[in-house]
Amino acid sequence: MNSTLYRAWLQYSPIQDAELREAYRRVLGTISLEGRRSELLDSAIEELRSGCRSLLDIEPELLLLGNEMPQLASNEGISRGLQLRVQPADNVQDLEEGNNSAPGKLGPEGFRLEYLEGKGQERVILIGGSEKGLLYGVFHLLRLVAAHEPLTAWNVTEEPVNRLRMINQWDNADGSIERGYAGRSIFYRDGRFTEDLTRVKDYARLLSSVGINAISINNVNVHEIETRFITREYLPQVAQIASVFRKYGITLYLSINFAAPLHIGGVGTSDPLNEDVRRWWRAAADEIYSHIPDFGGFLVKADSEHRPGPFAYGRDHADGANMLAEALKPHGGIVIWRCFVYNCMQDWRDRSTDRAKAAYDHFTPLDGRFMDNVLLQIKNGPMDFQVREPVSPLFGSMKHTNQVLEFQVTQEYTGQQRHVCYLVPQWKDVLNFDTHADGQGSYVKRIVSGSLHSMKLSGIAAVSNIGDDENWTGHTLAQANLYGYGRLIWNPDLTSEEIAEEWTRQTFGNDEAVIKTACGMLMKSWPIYESYTSPLGVGWMVTPHTHYGPDVDGYEYSRWGTYHFADRDGIGVDRTAATGTGYTAQYFEPNARRYETLEDCPDELLLFFHHVPYSHRLKSGKTVIQHIYDTHFEGADAAAELLVEWASLEGRIDPAQHAQVAARLAEQAEHAKHWRDVINTYFFRKSGVPDGRGRTIF
Amino acid sequence: MNSTLYRAWLQYSPIQDAELREAYRRVLGTISLEGRRSELLDSAIEELRSGCRSLLDIEPELLLLGNEMPQLASNEGISRGLQLRVQPADNVQDLEEGNNSAPGKLGPEGFRLEYLEGKGQERVILIGGSEKGLLYGVFHLLRLVAAHEPLTAWNVTEEPVNRLRMINQWDNADGSIERGYAGRSIFYRDGRFTEDLTRVKDYARLLSSVGINAISINNVNVHEIETRFITREYLPQVAQIASVFRKYGITLYLSINFAAPLHIGGVGTSDPLNEDVRRWWRAAADEIYSHIPDFGGFLVKADSEHRPGPFAYGRDHADGANMLAEALKPHGGIVIWRCFVYNCMQDWRDRSTDRAKAAYDHFTPLDGRFMDNVLLQIKNGPMDFQVREPVSPLFGSMKHTNQVLEFQVTQEYTGQQRHVCYLVPQWKDVLNFDTHADGQGSYVKRIVSGSLHSMKLSGIAAVSNIGDDENWTGHTLAQANLYGYGRLIWNPDLTSEEIAEEWTRQTFGNDEAVIKTACGMLMKSWPIYESYTSPLGVGWMVTPHTHYGPDVDGYEYSRWGTYHFADRDGIGVDRTAATGTGYTAQYFEPNARRYETLEDCPDELLLFFHHVPYSHRLKSGKTVIQHIYDTHFEGADAAAELLVEWASLEGRIDPAQHAQVAARLAEQAEHAKHWRDVINTYFFRKSGVPDGRGRTIF
Repeated sequence: MNSTLYRAWLQYSPIQDAELREAYRRVLGTISLEGRRSELLDSAIEELRSGCRSLLDIEPELLLLGNEMPQLASNEGISRGLQLRVQPADNVQDLEEGNNSAPGKLGPEGFRLEYLEGKGQERVILIGGSEKGLLYGVFHLLRLVAAHEPLTAWNVTEEPVNRLRMINQWDNADGSIERGYAGRSIFYRDGRFTEDLTRVKDYARLLSSVGINAISINNVNVHEIETRFITREYLPQVAQIASVFRKYGITLYLSINFAAPLHIGGVGTSDPLNEDVRRWWRAAADEIYSHIPDFGGFLVKADSEHRPGPFAYGRDHADGANMLAEALKPHGGIVIWRCFVYNCMQDWRDRSTDRAKAAYDHFTPLDGRFMDNVLLQIKNGPMDFQVREPVSPLFGSMKHTNQVLEFQVTQEYTGQQRHVCYLVPQWKDVLNFDTHADGQGSYVKRIVSGSLHSMKLSGIAAVSNIGDDENWTGHTLAQANLYGYGRLIWNPDLTSEEIAEEWTRQTFGNDEAVIKTACGMLMKSWPIYESYTSPLGVGWMVTPHTHYGPDVDGYEYSRWGTYHFADRDGIGVDRTAATGTGYTAQYFEPNARRYETLEDCPDELLLFFHHVPYSHRLKSGKTVIQHIYDTHFEGADAAAELLVEWASLEGRIDPAQHAQVAARLAEQAEHAKHWRDVINTYFFRKSGVPDGRGRTIF
Repeated sequence: MNSTLYRAWLQYSPIQDAELREAYRRVLGTISLEGRRSELLDSAIEELRSGCRSLLDIEPELLLLGNEMPQLASNEGISRGLQLRVQPADNVQDLEEGNNSAPGKLGPEGFRLEYLEGKGQERVILIGGSEKGLLYGVFHLLRLVAAHEPLTAWNVTEEPVNRLRMINQWDNADGSIERGYAGRSIFYRDGRFTEDLTRVKDYARLLSSVGINAISINNVNVHEIETRFITREYLPQVAQIASVFRKYGITLYLSINFAAPLHIGGVGTSDPLNEDVRRWWRAAADEIYSHIPDFGGFLVKADSEHRPGPFAYGRDHADGANMLAEALKPHGGIVIWRCFVYNCMQDWRDRSTDRAKAAYDHFTPLDGRFMDNVLLQIKNGPMDFQVREPVSPLFGSMKHTNQVLEFQVTQEYTGQQRHVCYLVPQWKDVLNFDTHADGQGSYVKRIVSGSLHSMKLSGIAAVSNIGDDENWTGHTLAQANLYGYGRLIWNPDLTSEEIAEEWTRQTFGNDEAVIKTACGMLMKSWPIYESYTSPLGVGWMVTPHTHYGPDVDGYEYSRWGTYHFADRDGIGVDRTAATGTGYTAQYFEPNARRYETLEDCPDELLLFFHHVPYSHRLKSGKTVIQHIYDTHFEGADAAAELLVEWASLEGRIDPAQHAQVAARLAEQAEHAKHWRDVINTYFFRKSGVPDGRGRTIF
């Protein structure tokens, strides 16, 4: 496949402007490389060459300097064209310790790009902090070309802010993808690894181009076949996948089954303190590293939603994680242990139990007990990737524990890639949330970057949104979420608008009308989706299991701990310390007080924290019930308007891309009306309050 | 398998009473048979012998008289023991025409059993109207023995009231069963027919023992593999199944895919008026009958729930059914065409469309247009096997069309064989419903028996409840539904109590305490299930798709046409002619007026026909809302009481049977509390009316 849909943001569309093309050709016509050849450099050069071929219709001359060809070291060729260079390795030790601040020195994943002009000669110097940094620099350079950035603006030094920048595949060996909305797995089919890895390589290119440096390739719910991925039976195939990603600077991880010693190890238990179990895991780790020397480590969902874990043996999460960490430690591997732990067999009649409190209650008592190669992976909110949630109070509450923030790129609760919902603004809200853990300015982004509590290991992970659909993500506009995720965690200070524009230019070209319209649509897409689905932070009004489409009471009498308590008088969950579940007390001040106090609680989270009458006045001056009606009518109208806006771009972008998005937007507009009518009807029937503007409610 | 669970009502438990055993041994020690040996007579003898062996611990002496052994015709042996005889065939022509009333003559499926005593000798004469009648007589005789009926009471003449007595399997070739709650299919596994047909034979014995004479062996939703059952590829295997059932007097039918000519026939269409299509079906029928000379015919679900049908070609159901009937006619086959046709893509916002009206609207205009070997199969109610529905107004409305009533033995909406729900009383309500189609006394049972409108072909069909669970039906008490279905349609004038007692004696033995308790539990089980689930005929408050457990709004905003319209003030569907959908007008008077008039409408169907405020007073004097609370509290208590009653039988019946039922009853008691609390909480939150007795509502 080589269609516009497939190429996503690596279109490398030919530069039509003759002057600009000529300028790029001048500096990219000759590429010289200092340093030893390596897999990573080969990838960088391959990408550069195919980029130049496609963007500029040239085949650059390649000069290899350095160790292999020392005789060329003083050749005049090095004073023109693009000069690639890797920073000498003498400071790498420092840099790996996190000391990136040596003046003039680049971290191992950083790069510096410089355009120099003088004496009638132009050249561009690209220096990587390591070979991986150089690869990132190449992708950045090509991004500048695709965005038609003038050479004079090529002057940039970049370092990733977060050390671990990970993507989690929830792919199953049978080829299905849990919460996947873009076709089947590109990794597996019918219980086997796919043989043709072309698509895996193209996925690696997409991820590397936005700086992702880690991937777990199987679902955190580890089923029968996948449990055996860590054995000799499957490791040769896992190693093949690892080698594809390695060429793009991406380290491979596996999700493991905590009960593997019991199920496949012939050990009669999985007790983490049992010596046979510990020996089994050490042997398993040794076996893995004999196949994959740079294996990243394990991702673990334990004691969560019926997955096995240490609780079965009266042990805690620290016991479980440390046992695995001990096995990986000699090899430099890490354990990423998910904090998505709660009672999924809750009795809906019991209003004192609050799922939102569970992760904090489970994990904060363990702070300081985890080995230094354990990271806790914490979902952005306390529930589960809702359209709107407060930030998890775990962030900042464990000062002696490595932490990874988990986002969800796949749109499980945000329209399943049938509705457009650009999630970067949501993620930025999380990263910019001030936890006040160490006073003002204790932003989540500083916690997960490790800068606030000087974590040795930390970072961000997210659930992928890709599958084998031609355009990878089902909805072509959902490509922006994968792109944006990578770019944002590389640099959380990029704005949502900047990222949207970058993506749009690379994906659809540089027509200003397209940029303006498409970016505008992306920017308002999350607010629109929120407006016709989930009022005031209430969440969970979706069809059980599929999580698509409205079902207001779908989870109301279930065991999942996800309620809204709507009755004829009011709605919302009282999570205050004064009269509710006490969840607000898990926050540092002043957040705790702000959420606790009805007057101070932000409207968009009102129903998450408080149960209020339908007549309650919001800061907008509207009542809750009128707000529900208004947002749903306006939201459905806005969804219809998206379709109109997109139609205006017909003829300005590639027809296949245009048609794909248009079809999805039409579906969204129709489905938004269904959402509007179900939600409004539900609350009208319950409250009996008519719409203040007399619109049709059924 | 030969456990008590597996043997169901054919336990043939040893007679412990010495005197009674001796009496039975005297007459069953010698069995003489007049007539030609045949498959059916072999089955009768095999059943008699294994019955005598098990019940009486004797190996009866068998004397074969008649054609094969004429020299014995006057042997003194014929004046003692059990004498089996088949009525001479000279009147069979008459009898097949439905003229069963020739004095002293038996219909082909009837039998006469007589105990004669005199001159110090006892004998029992069993005469079958045909070999099949004789087989039914043998099962009846064994039933009398199992129930310890004294010989002096052995004097009975039986004729089945309904001609077609059918069971429909909803089994799929992959081994799954649509709406099956008792394990996997006994017919198929992983896309193939099962090789060992032992269990199929035992199923045939169970069915034959209660008089079932027809079976369709594949789901009415015909998938890919099953579409090819009517081809050379699968017919040899279908024929093997047919031969197993033939030995027990059961004729085999297949569900067919209306689009087969298009999908597997290489004909570019399935238009029923297209000559190529008609030729294809004729050839298909010829092929089938070359493998199965007594093949029964086709069962067809067309233009229903996305199944293909004649509508795609602008044809109607008569065109479709007649095309198939024409192909089968030369072979004596019939078409059973289901009337379960409605718009399953309804807009919930449209209150004028009423799914309840659909079957009547579709089919009554076609009365008189169907060939005489077409039967319309009509579900008992206008919706879909709810706990409580009115009787379908189609019954009696098509006086020139053969009709089959369809029941559902599998408990899709009635507890899925995890709750006990003895359905015979529900079915009797349907059969005894007076349609007034031809004045008073126009009972449904007279319509489907053919006696009211002198139908040539008619009868009753039902969806089976069996699977490969050891006890066939998941819940052992659910065996009573399969048993009761067969017995009731043989003779609709049997009472529910009589049938329950018959079944209990054969299944659990003749301990009077067991009979009393078990029959009592069966008799109140449907009212109990109704009380904690579905108030006042409202229906559909179940989890979508699975149809198990409460979800009051689960179908409220769906496309399925199944709503309750509950709001804060009231609940119910206005189906009156005056202000509602006009459904009531589909009934004959006085039914139409009774349902139309709020004061006359029976309470148990109130919300099916009327939308009323929660404060509406029922005939009981209670308000609707208090009735909801009361029935749900009382129902859950009654479910818990069932468990206590059953516990009292421990030690009185087989331990495996006791334990199996006890486990299900415990689950039911727990689940009934969930039902109670969800329904009560839903209506309390919506209505705001507190329980008059102050019980806990959440």
